[in-house]
Amino acid sequence: MFALAGAKVSAYCGDRAAFLGKYRDYGNPLSVEKGKLDGTLNYNLNPCGALQTTLELAPGKSAEFVFILGQKREAQAKEIIARYENVAITEKEIAELKKYWHSKLENLKVDTPDDNFNNMINTWNAYQCFITFVWSRAASLVYSGLRNGYGYRDTVQDIQGIIHLDPEMALEKIKFMISAQVNHGGALPLVKYSHNPGKEDKPEDESYRRDTGHPSYRADDALWLFPTVWKYIAETGNTKLLDEVIPYADSGQDTLFNHLKKAIDFSLNNLGIHGLPAGLHADWNDCLRLGAKGVSVFVALQLYYGFEIMIRFAKFKKDSATEKEMNDLKVHFGKIIEERCWDKDRFIRGITENDVVVGKGGDPEASLWLNPQSWAVISGYADEARGKQILDLVHKELNTKYGARLMSPAYRKHAFDGALALLFNPSTKENGGIFLQTQGWIILAEALLGRGGRAMEYYLESCPAAQNEIADTRLMEPYAYSQFTESVDSPFEGRSHVHWLTGTASTVMVGCVEGILGLRPDLEGLRLSPAVPASWKSFTIEKCFRGSKLKIKVNNPDGRESGCKKLTVNGAAMEGNYIPAGVLKAENEIVLEM
Amino acid sequence: MFALAGAKVSAYCGDRAAFLGKYRDYGNPLSVEKGKLDGTLNYNLNPCGALQTTLELAPGKSAEFVFILGQKREAQAKEIIARYENVAITEKEIAELKKYWHSKLENLKVDTPDDNFNNMINTWNAYQCFITFVWSRAASLVYSGLRNGYGYRDTVQDIQGIIHLDPEMALEKIKFMISAQVNHGGALPLVKYSHNPGKEDKPEDESYRRDTGHPSYRADDALWLFPTVWKYIAETGNTKLLDEVIPYADSGQDTLFNHLKKAIDFSLNNLGIHGLPAGLHADWNDCLRLGAKGVSVFVALQLYYGFEIMIRFAKFKKDSATEKEMNDLKVHFGKIIEERCWDKDRFIRGITENDVVVGKGGDPEASLWLNPQSWAVISGYADEARGKQILDLVHKELNTKYGARLMSPAYRKHAFDGALALLFNPSTKENGGIFLQTQGWIILAEALLGRGGRAMEYYLESCPAAQNEIADTRLMEPYAYSQFTESVDSPFEGRSHVHWLTGTASTVMVGCVEGILGLRPDLEGLRLSPAVPASWKSFTIEKCFRGSKLKIKVNNPDGRESGCKKLTVNGAAMEGNYIPAGVLKAENEIVLEM
Repeated sequence: MFALAGAKVSAYCGDRAAFLGKYRDYGNPLSVEKGKLDGTLNYNLNPCGALQTTLELAPGKSAEFVFILGQKREAQAKEIIARYENVAITEKEIAELKKYWHSKLENLKVDTPDDNFNNMINTWNAYQCFITFVWSRAASLVYSGLRNGYGYRDTVQDIQGIIHLDPEMALEKIKFMISAQVNHGGALPLVKYSHNPGKEDKPEDESYRRDTGHPSYRADDALWLFPTVWKYIAETGNTKLLDEVIPYADSGQDTLFNHLKKAIDFSLNNLGIHGLPAGLHADWNDCLRLGAKGVSVFVALQLYYGFEIMIRFAKFKKDSATEKEMNDLKVHFGKIIEERCWDKDRFIRGITENDVVVGKGGDPEASLWLNPQSWAVISGYADEARGKQILDLVHKELNTKYGARLMSPAYRKHAFDGALALLFNPSTKENGGIFLQTQGWIILAEALLGRGGRAMEYYLESCPAAQNEIADTRLMEPYAYSQFTESVDSPFEGRSHVHWLTGTASTVMVGCVEGILGLRPDLEGLRLSPAVPASWKSFTIEKCFRGSKLKIKVNNPDGRESGCKKLTVNGAAMEGNYIPAGVLKAENEIVLEM
Repeated sequence: MFALAGAKVSAYCGDRAAFLGKYRDYGNPLSVEKGKLDGTLNYNLNPCGALQTTLELAPGKSAEFVFILGQKREAQAKEIIARYENVAITEKEIAELKKYWHSKLENLKVDTPDDNFNNMINTWNAYQCFITFVWSRAASLVYSGLRNGYGYRDTVQDIQGIIHLDPEMALEKIKFMISAQVNHGGALPLVKYSHNPGKEDKPEDESYRRDTGHPSYRADDALWLFPTVWKYIAETGNTKLLDEVIPYADSGQDTLFNHLKKAIDFSLNNLGIHGLPAGLHADWNDCLRLGAKGVSVFVALQLYYGFEIMIRFAKFKKDSATEKEMNDLKVHFGKIIEERCWDKDRFIRGITENDVVVGKGGDPEASLWLNPQSWAVISGYADEARGKQILDLVHKELNTKYGARLMSPAYRKHAFDGALALLFNPSTKENGGIFLQTQGWIILAEALLGRGGRAMEYYLESCPAAQNEIADTRLMEPYAYSQFTESVDSPFEGRSHVHWLTGTASTVMVGCVEGILGLRPDLEGLRLSPAVPASWKSFTIEKCFRGSKLKIKVNNPDGRESGCKKLTVNGAAMEGNYIPAGVLKAENEIVLEM
C-alpha cells in the first residue's frame, strides 16, 4: 500500500527498473532527475512504489500532505487513506507515539558527567533494547532465511535489556519462552513464530529438525533463564511468578520454579568428561564444537550461577530440601571447576571429547578466552582476589582500543577440528574479534569487583556515541550497537558489523544499569552499588521501582570508584547500601555518598 | 586468482567498495573514472580483482598482454601465470579451443533457406545444449541454493540435445544417470554432485530428504530415460549397451535393459485412481499437485511411449516374453487413456484424487493444456486424424505470436487446491505462460504429422535469432533460449526469463533435428522425414552417422511440407525414405526428393 493523503497523485511508478532508469541505481534515479514518474506498473519483476504530486505555493504559504506506506487488503487500505485526508491527524499520532516511548524511557533517567553514557542509557541503547526485544533477529537481512523463529538464547537474553523499563512487557515474553522449554528441561533452540505450547515437536523429532534446521539441543539455552527470571522478579518483587503454572513446549506443565529445576536437570543429565556439562551442539559460542562428550567451562559457570539463583528462590520459598540440594551441587561443581577448569592464572574455555584443553596458558593460539573470566566473576564462582587476577590478565592480553577481544591469539594454524571460528579471518567475529555482546559481561564483571574506572574504560571503547568522530572507521550509525568489531589482526581495525538486531544491546545495558550504575534489586529491596570512574564527582538517577519514584543523588567527593559511606532515603539513614522495599513512599529522595 | 602476464601490474584493488566508490555502482566505477586503482585489499567484506598496467606505445606499434582469472592454490597459480608470460601461447590455446568446439559442431551442419534456423542449429542452440549438458542447473544464480545436485528429469532431458553431436559424451552421462535409479525403478529426484552409485540414500531416508530437500519421488523422472536411451542407441547403433551392467543408486545392479523394465515397474507400482499413473509429488509440471491417488495424463502418455521403446528393444533382443508383456500393457493402458483421458476434442491434463478432471473442455480456466496434446502424438498414442484434430485445437486456442501457451485460460479464480501455478501472475511460467521447453515438443509433434509449415511457425515464434529486432521486448540475448516467455495476459507480452540453463535448449534441438530436419535413426539405420515449410525449395545437411559422413541434399520442387518421392544414396535408390546402415560408405552423397 503506497498512498498520498492531503494532495493529489499527479504521477506514479510501480516498476523499479523504470524508476531507476537503465544503468542507474538508487544514487541517481532517472525519475528523480527528470522530475517525472512515467506511470509504468509492475508485472513479475521488481516492484517499487513511487508517487508524485504537484504543488503550487504562493509566497509565504505552506502545505501539508502525507505519504502512506503499509500492507493491507484494498478495503482496509482505503479506510486508512481516508483517515489521513485530515492531515492534522498525523501531528496527533506523532505526539502519541512520542508519549508512548517516553512512558517507557522515563522509567530510568540518568544524568552523569558522561554525555555519551547518558545519551545511550536514556535513549538509544534503551530503544535498541526494545527493538531486539520485539524483533529478536527476525527483521534482519543478515539472518534472513536462517532464523524462521525466535532463537532461544538470543530472545531470553534480549528480555534482560527492558526489564528495568517495562517489566510487564518482559513478563509476557518470559512466560512465552518458558513455554518453549521441553519437559526434560532442555530448551527448543528455535521457537517457531507459530509456537503452540504443549503441542510442539522438538529436536528429537525429524519434523522439528526439518522445519528449523536445528539438529539438537544447545548446552546453554535454558540456562539463560536464570539471570533473566532473577532480574524480572528482583525488579518487580513478583515472587508469585515462581508458583505460576506454565506449559512445557511438548507436553505437560509445571510451576515456573519447577521449570527452572528442570533446566538444572537437563544440564545434570548431559554431563561430559570429568563430570562437567557437555558442550552439546554448541554453547554461547556457536563456533565451538567440542564433541559429544566435550565440556564447556562457560556452561559450567552458567550452571554454577543457576545453583545460586535457585538457592535464593528456594530460601524465599522455604524449600529447604531444594536449598540443600542446590548448595550441595554448588559445592560439588565448584570443586570440579577448580580441579579441571583452572589453569595457573586463567580459566580455560573447554575440554574436547578427546581431552584436549582449549584455552590453556602458553597455547600458540586461543590461549586466553574472555567469557570464562568474566563469567567466573558474574557467576560468583571467583572470589575478589581471583577475580581481580583474571580480569587484570584480560585487560593486559585481550583489551584493545575498541574493546576486549573474544580470545587471543586468533586461530590460524592451530585450531582443533571443532574450532569453526577458523572459518573467519583473524580478528573477525568468533575468531578473536571483539564480540560486542561480551563487552557487557566484562563491564558487569569489573563493576561487580568495584572497579568503576575499568568498567567505564571497556564501556567507552565500544560505545557507539563515543565513536561519532570515527564513523568512517566504524562504518556504522553512532547510536546503534553492532554484533562485532574487527580487531588488531585486521587492516580495518574498528570496523563494525551486523547492527541493531544483536544481543549487544541488552548485555551492555545490564552492564551499565546493574554494573556501573549499581542498581541491584533483590527479592526484598534495592541495593545501590555504583562502580564509576573516580572522576565522576556526582550524578543522579531517576528510577521507577515497584510503583515508587526514586530520585537518587550520588556524591563522590573523594573520587572513589565504588563503595558506600552513607545512604539516606527521605532523610533516614539506611544500613549499608541497601534499601528495603518497605521504606519506600510514592516519591523518594535518596542520597548516597561513596 | 587474478593475474596479468606479458605486462607489469602498476596498481591493483581487491575491495569492491573501494573500486566502485561511494554511491556508485558498476555503471560508473570511480576507479575507472579516475584511471587509477588505489591499492586497497579486502578483509571480510566484498572482494574484487582489479589490475592496472601502464603501456607506452610508439606510433604504429602494438602490445599484447593477458589478464588471467582462475581459482587455484598459490603454487599452481604461479605456474599458470608463468606459463602465460609468453603471450603467444594464448593464440595457440584459443585456436585449440575453437577446434574443440568445431569438432563437435561439425557433426551436424545445415544449410536451409532460413538463416535464423541455420545459425541456431549449427552454432548457438548446439552450444547452449552443451552448456546445459555440462552444468545442468548448477551454475545458475536463479537456482542458487535450490539445486545442490543434478535434477533427474532436467539432466536426462539435457542429454538429448547433444546425442547427434557427441554421442560418446552423452553415453557417459546416460550411465551416470542410470546409476541414480533406485532399485525399485524410481529415480532420485536430485542426484548429488558426489553421487556414489550403489551406496546412496534415497527419498525414503530422512538423510536424503534433509540433504536435498526432496521429500518424495516424482512420477516422471525415470520415464525420461526412454527417449534419451532410445536416441543414443539409435544414433550410434550401440545396442550392446542394453546388456551392460550398471549399479542402482542404493544397492544392487542390473543390465540397462532391466533398468528400463524397472522404470516401467515403478510406474505400474504407483497407480492412482482409474488405474492411471499417479502424479506423485509432481510430474513434469512441478506446480501440479494432484494428491496421493491423483493421476497424470502426461505421465500416462510417457509410459505409453516407454512401452513402445521397450517393444523395439525386446524385438531386437528377441525377448518375446517382454515384447508380449509390453504389447499387452500398451493395449491395456491405451484403453484406459481412451476411456478416461479423452474429452470430446482434447486430452485432459489429469484427474485429482477427488476425481476432479483438470483440463476439461468448457472449464472456465485451464481448459486446454499443451503437453497432453503434443505428447499424444509424440508417444504414438494418437493416430494421424486424432493428432491433426488436437494440434489444430492447440493452434487455435494456445498459439500466440511468441509461441504456444502451456495452458489457457490462466488460473485466476478457479484453481483447485493443488494448482500451485496460481502463485504466478496470469501468463507467467506454469500459469499459462509460454513455457519454452514445451515448444520443442509441439514442433516435434507437428513435424511427426508431416506439417512442416506449422512446425516452422512454432519454431520461429520462439527462436531467439528471429527475435533480434525485438530484443527490447524479449529482454534477453538473441542467441540463447530462456525458460519461459510472458504471454497475452501480461502487459509485457514477449518478455522472457531464466536464460541459458533451461531444458528449452535440448527439446527445441530435438524438435528441429528429429522433427523439422527429419533425421530419425533407428536400430538398423536412418530414416529421412523432413517436415519443412513449403517455401523451402531445397536445403542440405551434413551429418556424421556411425562413423560415416553423410552429405544430404533435399529437393522440394513441388513445395511440399513432407513426404518422399525418391531417395538415393551414392546414386542407388533406397526403399521409401529409409537408409539401412549397411549401405553407407565412409563418405556418402544422399539425395532426397520430397
